Amino acid sequence: MNTMDYMQELGKQARAAARHLAVATTERKNTALLRIADAIESRAAHLIEANQKDLAAGTSKHLEPALMDRLELTPARIGAMANGLRQVAGLADPIGTITDLMYRPSGIQVGKMRVPLGVVGIIYESRPNVTADAAALCLKSGNAAILRGGSEAIQSNQAIAACIKTGLEQAGLPCTSIQVVETTNRDAVGELIRMPDYVDVIVPRGGKGLIERISAEATIPVIKHLDGICHVYIDDRADLDKACNIAFNSKTQRYGTCNTMECLLLAAGIAEAVLKLLAPLYREAGVEIRGCKKSRAILPDIKAATEADYATEYLAPIMSLKIVTNMEEAIRHIATYGSQHTDCIVTEDYSRARQFLREVDSSSVMVNASTRFADGYEYGLGAEIGISTDKFHARGPVGLEGLTSQKFIVLGDGHIRT
Amino acid sequence: MNTMDYMQELGKQARAAARHLAVATTERKNTALLRIADAIESRAAHLIEANQKDLAAGTSKHLEPALMDRLELTPARIGAMANGLRQVAGLADPIGTITDLMYRPSGIQVGKMRVPLGVVGIIYESRPNVTADAAALCLKSGNAAILRGGSEAIQSNQAIAACIKTGLEQAGLPCTSIQVVETTNRDAVGELIRMPDYVDVIVPRGGKGLIERISAEATIPVIKHLDGICHVYIDDRADLDKACNIAFNSKTQRYGTCNTMECLLLAAGIAEAVLKLLAPLYREAGVEIRGCKKSRAILPDIKAATEADYATEYLAPIMSLKIVTNMEEAIRHIATYGSQHTDCIVTEDYSRARQFLREVDSSSVMVNASTRFADGYEYGLGAEIGISTDKFHARGPVGLEGLTSQKFIVLGDGHIRT
Repeated sequence: MNTMDYMQELGKQARAAARHLAVATTERKNTALLRIADAIESRAAHLIEANQKDLAAGTSKHLEPALMDRLELTPARIGAMANGLRQVAGLADPIGTITDLMYRPSGIQVGKMRVPLGVVGIIYESRPNVTADAAALCLKSGNAAILRGGSEAIQSNQAIAACIKTGLEQAGLPCTSIQVVETTNRDAVGELIRMPDYVDVIVPRGGKGLIERISAEATIPVIKHLDGICHVYIDDRADLDKACNIAFNSKTQRYGTCNTMECLLLAAGIAEAVLKLLAPLYREAGVEIRGCKKSRAILPDIKAATEADYATEYLAPIMSLKIVTNMEEAIRHIATYGSQHTDCIVTEDYSRARQFLREVDSSSVMVNASTRFADGYEYGLGAEIGISTDKFHARGPVGLEGLTSQKFIVLGDGHIRT
Repeated sequence: MNTMDYMQELGKQARAAARHLAVATTERKNTALLRIADAIESRAAHLIEANQKDLAAGTSKHLEPALMDRLELTPARIGAMANGLRQVAGLADPIGTITDLMYRPSGIQVGKMRVPLGVVGIIYESRPNVTADAAALCLKSGNAAILRGGSEAIQSNQAIAACIKTGLEQAGLPCTSIQVVETTNRDAVGELIRMPDYVDVIVPRGGKGLIERISAEATIPVIKHLDGICHVYIDDRADLDKACNIAFNSKTQRYGTCNTMECLLLAAGIAEAVLKLLAPLYREAGVEIRGCKKSRAILPDIKAATEADYATEYLAPIMSLKIVTNMEEAIRHIATYGSQHTDCIVTEDYSRARQFLREVDSSSVMVNASTRFADGYEYGLGAEIGISTDKFHARGPVGLEGLTSQKFIVLGDGHIRT
């Protein structure tokens, strides 16, 4: 079978499975999740064996060390995968939830019932645990899924797919509910993102290049985020200790994540006091600072920031720094250079906090907290399928609810419209 | 200026205006709505004059009578437009609303704040009142809008646009908040649906052909509905009176609307009793019935329904009829031939009502109520910009909330992630 026919076949099966999943009971979905977790744990040795083949192939292809690290399955990572599935089983089932059921003047009752989106296509790179995580979220939210992992993880992903199949069968759900693409042919992606009859939404997880290509070529909706150019603005009415803690944590807690601060904005009135405390900490942590003219008057040994620096997601121990006149200038800077991901103000001023929350147009807007909190687990979504910087449908960390929609329900007693 | 440059210019201005609208106070938005209403009423004579020009052009172009009717502005219709604006002013402002603000184990508070989508592009045909209605909904929901009406209504729409401009100026909002496209060049539509930098969502209102073309060609999200192939299923445990009332009202209250019933499904056990009461009513109303073999055994004088009939949105006094074994067959029929718009069960059986509500995958699912209720006003949304049969973002009647998104807000007190 050629790749196009193969993908169409997966699509047809997914659409059929989605009808079953949409009406599956919470108990049945949870049983599947727990059985998949059991299968993953009991076949740990087999998973590691399959993973060794991927690692060996990766070594011979001279994959980068960071990629090899993401690819590797260890007993601890396998345990974490199984626990992730169990955690999703423990989350509330959003499907069927009825809200806002109200009587209307006509006498009918109108409300909304939460329903699955249908079929979710997920395209990701290297990390095999995404296979289990994505399967769990789709299954719990009543969606069928077609998962397309990176070719470098094909053996690991197929071994995890076998566990998923076992769990689905044991729970009495169609084994085509979650399908992992078996071909590494790149045409499979092109086909997956152009099957509106069979796929309702695409979630790409990976580098900016992958996501840009998919967004440009897809004929179905894409839940995506591109850059995470996150800002911390320290207002002149900030508490100095909180400010330094938050700015340091936002940059250094992890460098490679999308919610890491890339640019620090300082109100002129507090800049010198902040930098006196903060610059040595960054220096000690090995963070390179690229600053504006005013900041270089305070820290003469730092590099000058260019326009390009302010628009860069470094994902590395590098950050830009700018001293601004006031909060309005900070908000304008964020609107101009930011990526609408996560931006924070540090201030003790009530009115400024309120204004910043309202006016900054980002998927997460924070007061006095580290940008590193922008995450599905930290927000209480239980898990996340990704972070959306779009405004359409889902924004910010996307958990179970982002994989659902709502239908209107109407309860009458013979009501007709006059 | 050529059409492309002109549309790009409108887009740039809309994007700039959107930033102001997103943070405009409720009071300022309401003032604009009320001033626009006043301007429309005080310039009624001028609007009718402009409309006469469109009507004259329509006559000389031999437009269809139905189209001419939709195009016409009467004093009553002008009054209704102004009242529509005042009603939207009276609706609650969704923007800035914070929900689900909860403490997390880390100590931060996480919630969601409702925000506008940004810039909405609306493409519609003939009816000039859409110009005022769409402007009102976009304005109240904090969105800038670019409105592209039909060329046959250009004079009327420009006259309404002038009223909108006046109201915006009087309220101190950018007069580019709501822009009505001044060119009738068809390339303007092609450009509008391909400006992702300036337009966030397209709402096409019109015939299926228009909507299909826009959906196929747009590079930005589209909130749309295609067909309204709505069903009423009368269960064998239905109350006969309610059943006949609902089936009659769903078909005959208006023929040309998307929530009109196009197919009646009858449980075999009740079919004869229902048809005995209902067939004479339909006959009297001049409704043509096209039925399955079993139904023709009861009503020998009706036409046979073809496969194509069950997949047709008649928008006319024609309907299809099918006798099914039970509810499961009715649900399968709806899944196969329906358009996921609005479907209703008539039954007194609790478990069947519950199952139908859960299993039918349509934007509105009803029990014992006329399909004609599927409407933004009837649902209490205040007004609607359209009805979506998509699942992504918004489904069913789309009111103010459908034109918004949510951002996460995080409130901390110096919290950092460990």
